[in-house]
Amino acid sequence: MAIELQHLTKRQENYSQWYNELVVKADLAEQSAVRGCMVIKPYGYAIWEKMQQTLDQMFKRTGVKNAYFPLLIPKSFLCREAEHVEGFAKECAVVTHYRLKNDPNGTGVIVDPEARLEEELIVRPTSETIIWGTYKNWIHSYRDLPIICNQWANVMRWEMRTRMFLRTSEFLWQEGHCAHATAEESEARTVQMINLYAEFARKYMALPVVIGVKTETERFAGALNTYTIEAMMQDGKALQSGTSHNLGQNFAKAFDVTFVNKENKPEYVWANSWGVSTRLMGALIMAHSDDNGLVLPPHLAPIQVVIVPIFKNAEQLAKITETITPIIEELAAKGISVKFDDDDKKRPGFKFADYELKGVPVRLAIGARDIEAGTIEVMRRDTLEKSQLQIAGLPESIEALLEEIQQNIYDKALKMRDSRVKKVDSYDEFKKEIENGGFFLCHWDGTPETEELIKAETKATIRCIPLDGEEEEGVCMVTGKPSKRRVIIARAY
Amino acid sequence: MAIELQHLTKRQENYSQWYNELVVKADLAEQSAVRGCMVIKPYGYAIWEKMQQTLDQMFKRTGVKNAYFPLLIPKSFLCREAEHVEGFAKECAVVTHYRLKNDPNGTGVIVDPEARLEEELIVRPTSETIIWGTYKNWIHSYRDLPIICNQWANVMRWEMRTRMFLRTSEFLWQEGHCAHATAEESEARTVQMINLYAEFARKYMALPVVIGVKTETERFAGALNTYTIEAMMQDGKALQSGTSHNLGQNFAKAFDVTFVNKENKPEYVWANSWGVSTRLMGALIMAHSDDNGLVLPPHLAPIQVVIVPIFKNAEQLAKITETITPIIEELAAKGISVKFDDDDKKRPGFKFADYELKGVPVRLAIGARDIEAGTIEVMRRDTLEKSQLQIAGLPESIEALLEEIQQNIYDKALKMRDSRVKKVDSYDEFKKEIENGGFFLCHWDGTPETEELIKAETKATIRCIPLDGEEEEGVCMVTGKPSKRRVIIARAY
Repeated sequence: MAIELQHLTKRQENYSQWYNELVVKADLAEQSAVRGCMVIKPYGYAIWEKMQQTLDQMFKRTGVKNAYFPLLIPKSFLCREAEHVEGFAKECAVVTHYRLKNDPNGTGVIVDPEARLEEELIVRPTSETIIWGTYKNWIHSYRDLPIICNQWANVMRWEMRTRMFLRTSEFLWQEGHCAHATAEESEARTVQMINLYAEFARKYMALPVVIGVKTETERFAGALNTYTIEAMMQDGKALQSGTSHNLGQNFAKAFDVTFVNKENKPEYVWANSWGVSTRLMGALIMAHSDDNGLVLPPHLAPIQVVIVPIFKNAEQLAKITETITPIIEELAAKGISVKFDDDDKKRPGFKFADYELKGVPVRLAIGARDIEAGTIEVMRRDTLEKSQLQIAGLPESIEALLEEIQQNIYDKALKMRDSRVKKVDSYDEFKKEIENGGFFLCHWDGTPETEELIKAETKATIRCIPLDGEEEEGVCMVTGKPSKRRVIIARAY
Repeated sequence: MAIELQHLTKRQENYSQWYNELVVKADLAEQSAVRGCMVIKPYGYAIWEKMQQTLDQMFKRTGVKNAYFPLLIPKSFLCREAEHVEGFAKECAVVTHYRLKNDPNGTGVIVDPEARLEEELIVRPTSETIIWGTYKNWIHSYRDLPIICNQWANVMRWEMRTRMFLRTSEFLWQEGHCAHATAEESEARTVQMINLYAEFARKYMALPVVIGVKTETERFAGALNTYTIEAMMQDGKALQSGTSHNLGQNFAKAFDVTFVNKENKPEYVWANSWGVSTRLMGALIMAHSDDNGLVLPPHLAPIQVVIVPIFKNAEQLAKITETITPIIEELAAKGISVKFDDDDKKRPGFKFADYELKGVPVRLAIGARDIEAGTIEVMRRDTLEKSQLQIAGLPESIEALLEEIQQNIYDKALKMRDSRVKKVDSYDEFKKEIENGGFFLCHWDGTPETEELIKAETKATIRCIPLDGEEEEGVCMVTGKPSKRRVIIARAY
């Protein structure tokens, strides 16, 4: 184990392999026996739980209520909204039978051929169809609106090429599904939620995301408009981290969901949906970590501070424990999660490497001599810098240090990103530059054909039309046709 | 809607129908378009969330860590543990294909026959098999033990007869799966968790449960021993509310999970698993509610206090709002959830009936005259008693009242249960008495044959051998063979 710890591939050598190894070695997740599905291990799940709890509180402050809808969706529901079924991947898990039986010719079990379902059921790839089928019974009058519902759930899409957290056949997510009386209100909620996601990404994940609108090609199947937050990874590739869709009246029409408006006239309901998933874990890992392992922003770290005692005998340990116990209590009272690792079966050096690998933001090391001097050794994970702190006033110093680390991780990511955002006006230059990664601000003629050509020739896609972009007269770098603003083009996960 | 509210079937008329109607009318859940699967509506889900959060905190205080394992289980995994596959219902959702395609002969989609899975996958009915398949890689030495893992998840069992919350094809639950180095440690955890469930049921659900051991026939498939908590519903039937299973080394042997013990010898790992589900919602509803609707124990009520202003005009409402706002803030500061319902589209009488139906523990009504008198009308949901309280000191009075209500609901349930627990020594008497419901303490000869006979003749089952039961020489009421202690027999949900 101690030796394994040392063998993390360097980012420069192979970024992709570095990521795959890190996920496993930092004890976040592992491949399961089921193709494309992962096991989220306790340490990884603790990070996801922190994300969940934070987001859930942010949602509820805006009036969101949680609910739960069925896992399985009748096949016919998927076909109701034409664009949805057309655009949505048809790779999904299909339930066709409801019983096993003992194998008459062997020892195992077989699927009972007599227990075939009349209509096949699909493991939800997303829940618009089943939810709008349900909302039909909830909505009669404008008084029943708005419905601001969210569910935390597992979903499945039968992905061919999977990578842990980034793209797995089963993943965990939240999906919000709102019903409104007016188009304006629905659009406002759609924008509110993408802004909420951006705030969460920036404040908690230390991720400087760009907010933008997807092109028609990249938008959610069945949506009028898709908003996205796009983050840049250390290899310059984009990672779509959250989306919010204005669905117009498409699903209401498909499922015949009308309401009597204030003027006493029937009208189709206005819809939006929005979601983030365990993919955020991938973004978090890829954006900040280094060749020594995970780097976790303190706001999402399950263990924010680890204290490693350096001792030769039980007496020394007792003295250290006595000194450190009131400090741990003070830190806990401040809501800081601390682990005091006095396990005597592992050497301090092993522990140091392990907590570095696991991205614990602050590591304290304390021995007998430190107590005499009234100091303690502090290592911050983001910069790997060591320093001495006074034991007196330690809880306050640590609290301030955690905030400093949080800010520093964000600043570093922002600096990295800004250094790799570039305006490019020549397609030839673009084709050269894209090989090095980065976000490219380019003029585009607005046609799916040009978009498709860029993708086919460079593997890069239009990530979004950034919301804070300025209007600017220009010409498409590919066709020379007029363009009013720049879009962000990048290769993406 | 106002009229519908009045039409809740009375418990005396038809207890079963009363329950079904209540679940829907109190806005807790409804049937979905998918057979046997329910939609948990926001109000119902808010209660489940409170249960989840409370249990999760209780778990974590005992060292439990959460994780997540795949939804789909390879068919072959289910067959590994012989008793498990034999005893476990084979009614389950089977995934056989991974793709749909456009119907060449129509407009919809069909299952792509070419996308047939080599090995079918089962939507988890419980996760012992996939988890023990995973633990094999986590466990090498005694240093890797114990593993105290839990997951919050959805599971599916293809039930033929379903009832919302009590028995649904898909349900939400938590399942804990522990791995230990010794049989003693595993047994201790098994018992610890059933005690934790009992504490939760008593303190939060106000449910006086009996802790006991299941008979061999009723035990979990693959377990050495199953502990249970059994609650009594108002019709005298039992509802199994939580179970904890000592799995011995059965799953470790089936999945070949060994560890090197302190003596440096390989040994199979010791296992237990334990779970509660959305079935607890059914227990909560059935145990306490009355002919006016839901009765919620304050500790689990999403809205603990509702304040209904009685006003004729905006001026009066403004005055009430001014008086009540600081009180709401004080209640909130005490962690009490308050709703101030100033919706002027609904009459107070409608609101009263609606909050009664929804089981809000405390209702306050306040009008202009009350403000002058410095008093407020209080209605407590458990007894439906009205009284006047002084506005001065209201937050403290309400806080005390909520605790009083919590205790009263428990006391009432305990009294009801105790009045219907009866020692019976004659099988004839038992056959007569069982028709009226209740828990019967009877001597049983310990054989599956007698157990089966009782079940066949009376539809009653041995719920458990109560842990706090005394040793007592006796003879089986059916066969006259010797018995050392009484068991609890009842009809059950």
